[in-house]
Amino acid sequence: MNFLEKLSNAVKVNNSLLCVGLDIDLSRIPKFLLNKEDPIFTFNRTIIDETRDLVCAYKPNIAFYEMYGMYGLESLKRTIEYIGEEIPVILDAKRGDIAHTASAYAKSIFENYKADATTVSPYLGHDSVEPFTEYKDKGVFVLCLTSNPGYKDFQILGDEEPLYRTVARRVKEWNKNGNCGLVVGATSANELKEIRNLVGEMPILIPGVGAQGGNLQFSVKNGVTKKGERAIINTSRSIIYASDREDYARSAKLFARRLKDEINSYRWQG
Amino acid sequence: MNFLEKLSNAVKVNNSLLCVGLDIDLSRIPKFLLNKEDPIFTFNRTIIDETRDLVCAYKPNIAFYEMYGMYGLESLKRTIEYIGEEIPVILDAKRGDIAHTASAYAKSIFENYKADATTVSPYLGHDSVEPFTEYKDKGVFVLCLTSNPGYKDFQILGDEEPLYRTVARRVKEWNKNGNCGLVVGATSANELKEIRNLVGEMPILIPGVGAQGGNLQFSVKNGVTKKGERAIINTSRSIIYASDREDYARSAKLFARRLKDEINSYRWQG
Repeated sequence: MNFLEKLSNAVKVNNSLLCVGLDIDLSRIPKFLLNKEDPIFTFNRTIIDETRDLVCAYKPNIAFYEMYGMYGLESLKRTIEYIGEEIPVILDAKRGDIAHTASAYAKSIFENYKADATTVSPYLGHDSVEPFTEYKDKGVFVLCLTSNPGYKDFQILGDEEPLYRTVARRVKEWNKNGNCGLVVGATSANELKEIRNLVGEMPILIPGVGAQGGNLQFSVKNGVTKKGERAIINTSRSIIYASDREDYARSAKLFARRLKDEINSYRWQG
Repeated sequence: MNFLEKLSNAVKVNNSLLCVGLDIDLSRIPKFLLNKEDPIFTFNRTIIDETRDLVCAYKPNIAFYEMYGMYGLESLKRTIEYIGEEIPVILDAKRGDIAHTASAYAKSIFENYKADATTVSPYLGHDSVEPFTEYKDKGVFVLCLTSNPGYKDFQILGDEEPLYRTVARRVKEWNKNGNCGLVVGATSANELKEIRNLVGEMPILIPGVGAQGGNLQFSVKNGVTKKGERAIINTSRSIIYASDREDYARSAKLFARRLKDEINSYRWQG
């Protein structure tokens, strides 16, 4: 099964567009876990156990594992393995380098970590993205319009059209293997509509709901296709750190379920 | 000593603007090394031994170590440690993510790997770069105009001015701690002149000489300051894989020395 099939399957089976971001932070996980063997994996495992019937994907950001050195990366590998075959894993890495180097990154992400999809930066253009899209069974989400304050520095520049729109158009051209997607922040809900109209059925990964303050209703309405699909609404910290006590996994579950249901209430309003 | 001081020192002591890119590839290193304990580190160590009096910096690209999983990353760590205090290490990583995530990457690169400098992508704007520049003693090279074919896709777009020039101007504004630099490919030697004029004394990392076919003479002439400094001319594969036989380290040394001298012959022509 390729990434898109796996995604569609999870969306259908779990009736969910919710993606849980597994952005580990040892200073925020419940203290008692720090005494366990492999606290990172132990934390992720319980979060996964409680949410795997509520999500369409998991999105660990590799930065938070790199931060803990080899130990963190080993835990990431175990986490991806533990998620298993039913739910796709988007390993958020935002890599972007010349072709020769991009091939090495793609190999690492898709073959070593066995992720189903990843995120890449567009700045170096087509030959920096191609080594990823050559993995036909894998998904490649190209950064388009991001959810941080600095999106204004370059992404909206341009006289004829803003850069983010040029990126969206180009990615549509590059999508020969049908495995491209875009990243568009929930903080730009209006532009989401315009981008959705431009790229048709392409999946859009939408971070920025929750801690970053994006508008959920408009992100969902404007992000989905006419069938109410292909929008992946990511929330990280507000789900996984919903509680820092013994009940953390249950709190994450309750929060994820509420969010999943709220997302579904907007899915067919588009 | 901060990165710039360390760089200036190495430039002076070795009379060199040459940076050797340690882009490991186990299929290209001499076969007999594969039987040694830690072939990656063994290869790097001999290359470093033979070139450490010829260079102003080393630039391992982390992609080629990530490709070999934990083993590769352990070897990278050993390599950086082995380079020691005299020659600065630019860990080429081209990271770019929202501030919270960028902090995790910066921590990994500067604290775990103990690199002296790194490369970052500008696409997410100022708050994606700031967590790196906050490490005042470290150098941060922002991608400006790259040496691959895809630079045309976005970097030269813009009516009033091309994107790469906007990036250069912004980085100049962001340079409050005096630790920013730019990456400009040797394949754009004319634009190098324009960028040098714009950014004054800021260091410019110039890849793309060698395997990628950039023009050495014009890259050096146009890249240096009036004092013939602050241009870091990187070559990776054509030095470290100059030979794949027993004499590989000596071949690398000869090639590096020739290149260093050729660079010096253009340094004061600007």
